[in-house]
Amino acid sequence: MTDQFTLQARTGAAMRLRRGQHLTIVNTHGTQVVDCWALSAADPAEHMSMPHCRNQWYRLTPRPGDLLVTNLRNPILRLVADSSPGIHDTLIPCCDLVRYHQLGIKGHHASCAENFTTALRSIAIEQRLPPPPLNLFMNVPLKANGALAVAAPDSKPGDHVDLEAEMDCIIVLSACPHDIFPVNGADCTPKDVAYAVR
Amino acid sequence: MTDQFTLQARTGAAMRLRRGQHLTIVNTHGTQVVDCWALSAADPAEHMSMPHCRNQWYRLTPRPGDLLVTNLRNPILRLVADSSPGIHDTLIPCCDLVRYHQLGIKGHHASCAENFTTALRSIAIEQRLPPPPLNLFMNVPLKANGALAVAAPDSKPGDHVDLEAEMDCIIVLSACPHDIFPVNGADCTPKDVAYAVR
Repeated sequence: MTDQFTLQARTGAAMRLRRGQHLTIVNTHGTQVVDCWALSAADPAEHMSMPHCRNQWYRLTPRPGDLLVTNLRNPILRLVADSSPGIHDTLIPCCDLVRYHQLGIKGHHASCAENFTTALRSIAIEQRLPPPPLNLFMNVPLKANGALAVAAPDSKPGDHVDLEAEMDCIIVLSACPHDIFPVNGADCTPKDVAYAVR
Repeated sequence: MTDQFTLQARTGAAMRLRRGQHLTIVNTHGTQVVDCWALSAADPAEHMSMPHCRNQWYRLTPRPGDLLVTNLRNPILRLVADSSPGIHDTLIPCCDLVRYHQLGIKGHHASCAENFTTALRSIAIEQRLPPPPLNLFMNVPLKANGALAVAAPDSKPGDHVDLEAEMDCIIVLSACPHDIFPVNGADCTPKDVAYAVR
């Protein structure tokens, strides 16, 4: 029996995985983007890196079986299973307060960048600048001319990905707080997701 | 009159630009990839960031007039002019020794990662891990299914880009030493390029 935790809408969580442990991330409502980071437990400056992953895959997005590698090209996670259509994003950075101000928000707005820093601080790690994350379930359609867009996730309620740790690592998850564009569904309303470690 | 410097094949260079200065990078032979980094002079942890640039452009690659922004979303450079067909890469990390070992090289091989660290050290800055660069002239064709490839540059001898500094910054250039795939032309032979600051 594996405990399943709720990651509340707009919030983040950090956790340690030992090599061989599995993390399942469940898109409870099907419409929520989950930003995912992985840092080496031995040296948090070594982190899962989307450019190095793309170089590993020769593809923009991971498929089941693919290794996710760090900025030192070491395997840190493996995408073991994915019940969704496999539409995830590796191109766009996490949202941050500057971005919300650019989009017209005044004052504070929750962001994946803040969730990253706050979640890491909860396990006594200080890191102010999040690396570019794996944006699970994020739908960034790419046109033939290289133009990008942001669309609602193409996943069903209950869709989930299973990641296995390839090294002892620290995972940070953020249920993206974006509520301006349909990043998190056509209703622009961030929702809870769930996760479990085994 | 502006002095033009040769950046020898397989080597790197670091330089300081004040806001408003221009850097021209000339693809002398038309076949050479030039990895380009920009770091804030005030805080080298703030650096030109391809994910943030893509979010700024809503496109994979820059066009003349586009701002290049940092991981804090501040403008650091502007692509003022580009005489090439505009095929540059923002998806792939710089080459490093681990990558050459993966490709079968034994022992040492020059790399853009080593050039980055060495060039910065020449101006008394220590940074061991290069951020993902703007790979000028690098041709990474992307298929509709998201698959990537690496092809020879699609530029002519003498093609050049002109970058203007939007903040005081440190630029690092590396004439990519890759000589296994046709990254640097069909003859897989790295070549000199040139640059000028005004």
